[in-house]
Amino acid sequence: MQQARAVETRAAIIRGAAAAFEQRGYGSTSLTQVSAAAGVTKGALYFHFDSKEALAVAIIDAQHEESVGAGRRLLDDNVPGLWALVSMSYELARQLRDDLIVSAGVRLTIEAANFTTPVSAPYVDWMAACEEFLQRGKAAGDVAPTVDVQAAARFFIAAFTGVQVVSDVLTKRGDIDLRLTDMWSLILPGLVAPERWDDLKNLAADVQRERATARP
Amino acid sequence: MQQARAVETRAAIIRGAAAAFEQRGYGSTSLTQVSAAAGVTKGALYFHFDSKEALAVAIIDAQHEESVGAGRRLLDDNVPGLWALVSMSYELARQLRDDLIVSAGVRLTIEAANFTTPVSAPYVDWMAACEEFLQRGKAAGDVAPTVDVQAAARFFIAAFTGVQVVSDVLTKRGDIDLRLTDMWSLILPGLVAPERWDDLKNLAADVQRERATARP
Repeated sequence: MQQARAVETRAAIIRGAAAAFEQRGYGSTSLTQVSAAAGVTKGALYFHFDSKEALAVAIIDAQHEESVGAGRRLLDDNVPGLWALVSMSYELARQLRDDLIVSAGVRLTIEAANFTTPVSAPYVDWMAACEEFLQRGKAAGDVAPTVDVQAAARFFIAAFTGVQVVSDVLTKRGDIDLRLTDMWSLILPGLVAPERWDDLKNLAADVQRERATARP
Repeated sequence: MQQARAVETRAAIIRGAAAAFEQRGYGSTSLTQVSAAAGVTKGALYFHFDSKEALAVAIIDAQHEESVGAGRRLLDDNVPGLWALVSMSYELARQLRDDLIVSAGVRLTIEAANFTTPVSAPYVDWMAACEEFLQRGKAAGDVAPTVDVQAAARFFIAAFTGVQVVSDVLTKRGDIDLRLTDMWSLILPGLVAPERWDDLKNLAADVQRERATARP
């Protein structure tokens, strides 16, 4: 009973902190503002997190758990690798727009380059997932045999990171789907096997159409 | 005389602040630490900058001035557009590694997504410069006529942003040249006109070779 309440309080603190960081930025938010946003005492806050950085890392972990969940489902569903990679990019964009924990977590991941312990796990985990998607795409003959899947996975994660940062600054992420579509139109020619080009050149549009009809 | 000293003090504050922000991160650096790093009194600091945010914006401006200078020289030199674009990416990477103001300025530009006035000019200016490079590349027949140069310029800036963020987190920018080379090997097939492919497929390696020999 007491343990259930502790779990609930911890989740409320994470939600409150995400909202406060999103509003004011991590650097300018005090722990007093976090406890007010979460509706808990400062004592409860310190019981669960011993520093602002520990709180940021907890938000990053919660976001990462949520985002990799979507990736894992695509891997388990045995969707074709290249389709899964493109689909994943639009799903992450949706989470960034609709989910405060994801939005705050991704922003904090980028600011965390300055933390006492830089946060690298999200990048490394996503690179591994993308590599798996690309490897499957290669096995299926969709990805050209000449593509270095490790290098491509690493670049894809970096490019996605940049696309969402710039979309955030310029349009508060309002244009992120359009910018991802631009990204795919420039990356796909370097990824797709020439003999599969006619089938896959509209992959980004095809994925978006299926996502639009699948939505409840 | 007094004015010259004021200019010098302002420059010393910018250098000191860049060093302090790079060491501790913008959010965790106090103005007391900045005045110590710059070797000026807090009074002198407040005479020149009325907030930490104003100081960050001044560093971003100084960095942007320095970085666009390199872009402007390439535009004036009438180097072929696509060569200039690739060359610019490696020059910016060098500045990020070797120049504290550039390194701090770029990091602050990304954190500035959370400032009271988000900083968007660097992205917008760079997109315009890249569009000009790509337009020249298209006029020269190097860039495929089907390429949307505005979309490509926008994506290139986003991709570069992400590549340097991820390289910073994972290797303190130690692998940035390698990651740029990966980027070009994936983007060039979507940019280059098919009939120019044989001449340009090794463009990134050619540019790096020329930069290595040109260096004093």
